[in-house]
Amino acid sequence: QILEHIQATQHPQILEGKHLLITAGPTREAIDPVRYLTNKSSGKMGYALAEQALALGADVTLVSGPVSIKALQGVNTITVESAEQMHQAVMENVDNADVFIGCAAVADYKPAELATQKIKKNNTTMAIELTRNPDILADVAKRSNRPFTVGFAAETNDVAKYAKGKLANKKLDMIAANDVSKPNQGFNTDDNALTVYWPEGECALTHGHKQQIARQLLELIHQQLK
Amino acid sequence: QILEHIQATQHPQILEGKHLLITAGPTREAIDPVRYLTNKSSGKMGYALAEQALALGADVTLVSGPVSIKALQGVNTITVESAEQMHQAVMENVDNADVFIGCAAVADYKPAELATQKIKKNNTTMAIELTRNPDILADVAKRSNRPFTVGFAAETNDVAKYAKGKLANKKLDMIAANDVSKPNQGFNTDDNALTVYWPEGECALTHGHKQQIARQLLELIHQQLK
Repeated sequence: QILEHIQATQHPQILEGKHLLITAGPTREAIDPVRYLTNKSSGKMGYALAEQALALGADVTLVSGPVSIKALQGVNTITVESAEQMHQAVMENVDNADVFIGCAAVADYKPAELATQKIKKNNTTMAIELTRNPDILADVAKRSNRPFTVGFAAETNDVAKYAKGKLANKKLDMIAANDVSKPNQGFNTDDNALTVYWPEGECALTHGHKQQIARQLLELIHQQLK
Repeated sequence: QILEHIQATQHPQILEGKHLLITAGPTREAIDPVRYLTNKSSGKMGYALAEQALALGADVTLVSGPVSIKALQGVNTITVESAEQMHQAVMENVDNADVFIGCAAVADYKPAELATQKIKKNNTTMAIELTRNPDILADVAKRSNRPFTVGFAAETNDVAKYAKGKLANKKLDMIAANDVSKPNQGFNTDDNALTVYWPEGECALTHGHKQQIARQLLELIHQQLK
């Protein structure tokens, strides 16, 4: 009880009673039984958000792509591989979510065909035909009774432009923009820096540990949620 | 000294004075600054070979693709990302190798073009043009003063046929064939089972921990090396 008291003092329970649904990590899009397309997301930012949300009193469901991070105690974690599996897990859990944070780096495309046997290297060149994956964030945002919907934009150039465009086009409540071209922030690092945009404002969360940045982002969400 | 004696008794120093060059893990072939092609190799088999070779008295150089395994003390480890980087690291270290074991799951193809900025998802379909990567194993095998050259064949079907074909076509000294379609062996597992072929014989290393299988494969190499 004393521990719980200290916990609650250090971490004001601003998200108590709220259910947060968070996605984390990359997705893997299979080409054949051994090869796949993926990206450099480590899952660290999404896991930091889940950990901090739990500390702030929230009920947390985390839909995680393949990562090397230990499962978080107290967080309901659903592990998936592909964007389609992540889409399905999110749709099955979005109904009772107050906040959705799409932090995963979901593959935009998947191979049009999945080979059931390992493809042999017979040719000097080949091409992989790709088709679009479902857009998880857009599908959450267009629900009639949707949660407060937060996206991430990981960009290497024109970061503010793309992020604001995504906020408007997908009618998000908030977007966190990540310049992944800079060293020591973004993918597969312990630190990060984000610029957060919402329809009426913006806020720069300057360089810090992902746990700190996660806490600050959750505080911004809490303010806009009220 | 006592510890060294116990060590030497438990691990007969059959590879003393030999220099082993081993590759491990997958390679990553960048599509743009965030996306890449790769495969399910965890690096566990290659790291087990390096660890056991060290225990058997060998000098070990390990060229490792991106893995989540801790570096091995006493093993000279060179970390790389792409097949081209792995090819270069192997060629720079092959001259004084007595044995080369190509255990890495090297990507056969890489994207023909590397985008310098993150590719935007404008179209409902797209295609990635691929070109062949250098063939590290073949390039080692065709050197005039080559080391004893061991390949791996990870297959999902017709395993023996493909493995024997690779042994003959690339003129290898030995090949270890891995049926990666079976559960609990092959990629990303702690256990494995291999069938080993050399020009005059073959040997099945039945299901066991990768460390045991590694030891047995090194003993087979030692026998053929004499």
